[in-house]
Amino acid sequence: MAGSNFGHLFRISTFGESHGGAVGVVIDGVTPGLEITEEEIQVQLDRRKPGQSSVTTPRQEPDTVHLLSGVFEGKATGVPILAILYNKDAQSSAYDDIKDKFRPGHADFTYIAKYGLRDYRGSGRASGRETAGRVAAGAIARKLLLGRGVKVTAYTWRAAGIQCDRACDLKAAALMVPIIEQLAVDGDSVGGIVECRITGLEAGLGEPVFDKLEADLAKAMMSLGAVKGFEIGSGFQCADMKGSEHNDPMDKNGFVSNHAGGIIGGISTGEEIVFRIAVKPTSSISKEQRTINIQGQETPIQTIGRHDPCICPRIVPVVEAMACLVLEDHYKRQIALKA
Amino acid sequence: MAGSNFGHLFRISTFGESHGGAVGVVIDGVTPGLEITEEEIQVQLDRRKPGQSSVTTPRQEPDTVHLLSGVFEGKATGVPILAILYNKDAQSSAYDDIKDKFRPGHADFTYIAKYGLRDYRGSGRASGRETAGRVAAGAIARKLLLGRGVKVTAYTWRAAGIQCDRACDLKAAALMVPIIEQLAVDGDSVGGIVECRITGLEAGLGEPVFDKLEADLAKAMMSLGAVKGFEIGSGFQCADMKGSEHNDPMDKNGFVSNHAGGIIGGISTGEEIVFRIAVKPTSSISKEQRTINIQGQETPIQTIGRHDPCICPRIVPVVEAMACLVLEDHYKRQIALKA
Amino acid sequence: MAGSNFGHLFRISTFGESHGGAVGVVIDGVTPGLEITEEEIQVQLDRRKPGQSSVTTPRQEPDTVHLLSGVFEGKATGVPILAILYNKDAQSSAYDDIKDKFRPGHADFTYIAKYGLRDYRGSGRASGRETAGRVAAGAIARKLLLGRGVKVTAYTWRAAGIQCDRACDLKAAALMVPIIEQLAVDGDSVGGIVECRITGLEAGLGEPVFDKLEADLAKAMMSLGAVKGFEIGSGFQCADMKGSEHNDPMDKNGFVSNHAGGIIGGISTGEEIVFRIAVKPTSSISKEQRTINIQGQETPIQTIGRHDPCICPRIVPVVEAMACLVLEDHYKRQIALKA
Amino acid sequence: MAGSNFGHLFRISTFGESHGGAVGVVIDGVTPGLEITEEEIQVQLDRRKPGQSSVTTPRQEPDTVHLLSGVFEGKATGVPILAILYNKDAQSSAYDDIKDKFRPGHADFTYIAKYGLRDYRGSGRASGRETAGRVAAGAIARKLLLGRGVKVTAYTWRAAGIQCDRACDLKAAALMVPIIEQLAVDGDSVGGIVECRITGLEAGLGEPVFDKLEADLAKAMMSLGAVKGFEIGSGFQCADMKGSEHNDPMDKNGFVSNHAGGIIGGISTGEEIVFRIAVKPTSSISKEQRTINIQGQETPIQTIGRHDPCICPRIVPVVEAMACLVLEDHYKRQIALKA
Repeated sequence: MAGSNFGHLFRISTFGESHGGAVGVVIDGVTPGLEITEEEIQVQLDRRKPGQSSVTTPRQEPDTVHLLSGVFEGKATGVPILAILYNKDAQSSAYDDIKDKFRPGHADFTYIAKYGLRDYRGSGRASGRETAGRVAAGAIARKLLLGRGVKVTAYTWRAAGIQCDRACDLKAAALMVPIIEQLAVDGDSVGGIVECRITGLEAGLGEPVFDKLEADLAKAMMSLGAVKGFEIGSGFQCADMKGSEHNDPMDKNGFVSNHAGGIIGGISTGEEIVFRIAVKPTSSISKEQRTINIQGQETPIQTIGRHDPCICPRIVPVVEAMACLVLEDHYKRQIALKA
Repeated sequence: MAGSNFGHLFRISTFGESHGGAVGVVIDGVTPGLEITEEEIQVQLDRRKPGQSSVTTPRQEPDTVHLLSGVFEGKATGVPILAILYNKDAQSSAYDDIKDKFRPGHADFTYIAKYGLRDYRGSGRASGRETAGRVAAGAIARKLLLGRGVKVTAYTWRAAGIQCDRACDLKAAALMVPIIEQLAVDGDSVGGIVECRITGLEAGLGEPVFDKLEADLAKAMMSLGAVKGFEIGSGFQCADMKGSEHNDPMDKNGFVSNHAGGIIGGISTGEEIVFRIAVKPTSSISKEQRTINIQGQETPIQTIGRHDPCICPRIVPVVEAMACLVLEDHYKRQIALKA
Repeated sequence: MAGSNFGHLFRISTFGESHGGAVGVVIDGVTPGLEITEEEIQVQLDRRKPGQSSVTTPRQEPDTVHLLSGVFEGKATGVPILAILYNKDAQSSAYDDIKDKFRPGHADFTYIAKYGLRDYRGSGRASGRETAGRVAAGAIARKLLLGRGVKVTAYTWRAAGIQCDRACDLKAAALMVPIIEQLAVDGDSVGGIVECRITGLEAGLGEPVFDKLEADLAKAMMSLGAVKGFEIGSGFQCADMKGSEHNDPMDKNGFVSNHAGGIIGGISTGEEIVFRIAVKPTSSISKEQRTINIQGQETPIQTIGRHDPCICPRIVPVVEAMACLVLEDHYKRQIALKA
Repeated sequence: MAGSNFGHLFRISTFGESHGGAVGVVIDGVTPGLEITEEEIQVQLDRRKPGQSSVTTPRQEPDTVHLLSGVFEGKATGVPILAILYNKDAQSSAYDDIKDKFRPGHADFTYIAKYGLRDYRGSGRASGRETAGRVAAGAIARKLLLGRGVKVTAYTWRAAGIQCDRACDLKAAALMVPIIEQLAVDGDSVGGIVECRITGLEAGLGEPVFDKLEADLAKAMMSLGAVKGFEIGSGFQCADMKGSEHNDPMDKNGFVSNHAGGIIGGISTGEEIVFRIAVKPTSSISKEQRTINIQGQETPIQTIGRHDPCICPRIVPVVEAMACLVLEDHYKRQIALKA
């Protein structure tokens, strides 16, 4: 019942800490016969890897995936797939400076509160590196979804106060970059909003009354470390709308508008699914902050090292991966219900 | 795997449609020995009942709860509790007018897409009446939480464009009411935002990496029919904040601020939990709307009958109930982990 | 996590005690569109009802089933089905004599050990009456299985020391009856063995490595109150066999023998499934026995009332129901895996 | 929903095939703070390893366990533990002879029926080597149980027609060995019965009505490849007993007899738990057998290589491991229920 499993019919169990032996995932329920290569999983992992742009950390992680079970002669055999990424050796002594301090914004305090002890090397289990397992599993779900005609695309929609006009707004991006670069120089960070769009999904997915499609998407997104909010379709804008404005009318061509964001009553309508998540500013900043140590004594803290001044670009492939995990699971659930 | 179960160690299965024989819930995992009466459950159900204020529907529902198992001599015996509310007889013929039409904003179209057929009397399983079972179960969870020192309070925070300054802002409420009453007269409706605050929760609840406390709260809230968004703590505001502003520093008295909203890394900090949900305007309005019927032909539609012009006041006890279900489940999970 | 749920994709939650308000079941995952009537469920319930033969109790129970949700215009709608059987009023005072005594063979002592209190009217939750919910759900699973060509048949194979030569051995039955009738007169009871045969099942059902088909069947059977053993195919006979005898060879017509009992490696072979369960003698006997009361004092006890001298005939429909629940669930799981 | 997970609060996911990259397990729910070393897990794994006695195969497997996550500075951190055992390289060409043939008694035919393809190197996922992950996880559960005062011991109780008089009957063992050695020389194998005894368990464990303790033990045991039967306490002997003989009376010292085998109504009584499993003769024998190939053509088959002529001694540590997994899970469930 500890919470490292996700999904039901396409189901994953992740494991690993940022500086333990390895991170990875066991994936159960992959359709037997599916062709899978390490290379196509690596493509998705590389999108999450640090050092992909000037607004993410140039830190190097050994993000090479190995498939150690469940794939034979290039095909899924229908039994659990182990995807593993080994960590580089980490010396515990490198963390002596912060091992007893609670870094603001990080889960140091809460892990101690919950478990009574914690792996203080990096962020341990709470590290973003844990999401590598999710991305590896998501790459397989994505492939199955492509076979069903479904496409999942996320992108930074707002960051550093700059908002995109459309999905891939290069002009907006060009405005964001120098602001974020300056924040990095200042030892600070900034938040943003990531939007995700899903096309090609058939109507009928989602399991009322608790496992509604938007409920499972919300859970998937809110399970990501930096996410403080989730909204679908009209989202928080709906609060000020009238029913006569918000209701999506239908004509013989289908839905006339999509305030619903592609889901009504917990079930996909067949229209595009559109949701957004609020991403908090990176907690690790090099500016000095106030905190306490494990003994309750006040102490200043500085998080040295290279960190992402804005986490949005690196969370994008994770958002896509989680969305794929949710959708593939619901495809199988709908097929099972009708069976 | 159909989605009518919620929770793990404090676990519910709801059943029932708005105009079938009954709605209700089976509750499993209630601590044996807990004193339970039908009366104290009824108190919570009555808060959800229609006709409680001028901005909700005056429709009368027979919301009397019966406990038919799991309680003996006034105490939970530790086996499943059946809480049932019988429906009044409904004549199918009363729904002849809309049985083949897809009401805008309602799940009529998606239920047909998913199941191939639907109970067209009222909203069937998609009716808000289904939440009676949730509220009944939540009343028991609430009682267990009170014994743990936890208090859960929700309230309408914004509606009809008017925002409260504080939790119980009578001045704001006084401004909202006439606007909503006028919308009702116009045959229209309006959305809002409900905020929920949880006090007395100990640090350490939540199960990373998927069953983070905010992830389970988000799922619980997004499983409610009218909810289009969820945010915790700073929520969507975090997008424009810097790390140096957003990180909550600590001093010897604990956290200095609470942008986190009481949860960091998926685990409760011991601070107040604060989250908000976006509630869409009621879909049922008496204004004429455009839609199609089951044969795909265009047709106007009017939803006659008395409906809530703003659903916020009635969703408040459901929000509290769902929050209680999540929290009690996580209390048991944390105790089991440490055992 | 309390154990009143069974199954995954065809999933049930039972509730109810022998003398509470009702017993029954919530069934989730029923294929939408399936035609269901209360009458066809009642047929199965009537097979389990007391008073069907001279070797079972003539006690009368009000075993009339009501479907209060999930069925509309005679068809399953795909949402949870509530099947409920109301209990007759029971006066607690009728149980004053045994309320504090632990009846030998019954779960009185262990329920107190686990829950700290118990519903002492009859056997409470541990009553065989709880299985009515299972039989009701099993009747629906049975119907779905019939549509897949699967037939499940159980029968008393041995009782009172008499063993059948074949499935419906009237000669053996004729020998059993007078022995069991005499035991009833003596205030005693006797055990037996029930065999179950499943035909028409396709090869490929079962989910290694833990949810093997025989593992789920064993769990289903061992979850019945009086069952002390389960064996499949060769069963305990295999202990003295050689590999060259036990292995089932194949020729172009398929398997030449069926020591496996229709399952190899946890997956159905397509051959007939054959399993047997050991049923202990009914615990309720009118002979005086030694026991203690809740204060730990020694006391004699007599279980007055009409009881089954041999439980086998009444367990037969329950065995079939549980087997149907397991099989229908695995059909859906196999379809989902391949999807 | 594919079946590679076991347990709820102490929960495992196994992965791996006999000749893939690795076998192992992810263990979730381990009490944080528990001291764990690779060495103490290795001790249990070495008991399962081939080559431990003259009646098991002298084949060498690289059974060295590595803990790659969830353990830090010698203690469980409360997050998932990955225990992995790498396989030695296997050349696919070594299996050319049998890759298209269905070995009698093996899951070759059923894996093809279920998945449409299979890893034909050794027995793939159906190999006994998969149980290494179970034994590794069981070693941790065993340690937690020892802290609770619980001891689990299994042993071969009958093999080759020789039955033990007591738990560690050296005289019986001395009689078995030469018979089994001769069977190995003859290219044949033999079955047996393994008994397991559990002492020190408190009363109150088990979750009626489906997750009864004996039901979960039965499932755990029947999920082992070679097991054809399970019985507890009186087991199949109960079929010929009278109620007056079988019911365990109580006096002021507790239960006078233990026909129940330590569980009544699905809940532990506090008495010793005693169960037995029927183990079929090893399927791999070097004697020539009749089978068909994947094209349906008849063909003789010989399973060359060194195999266990009797699997009982090697299944003993796996039986103990599975029993430990069930018990530790139920301890946590009982604590959660009462919480």
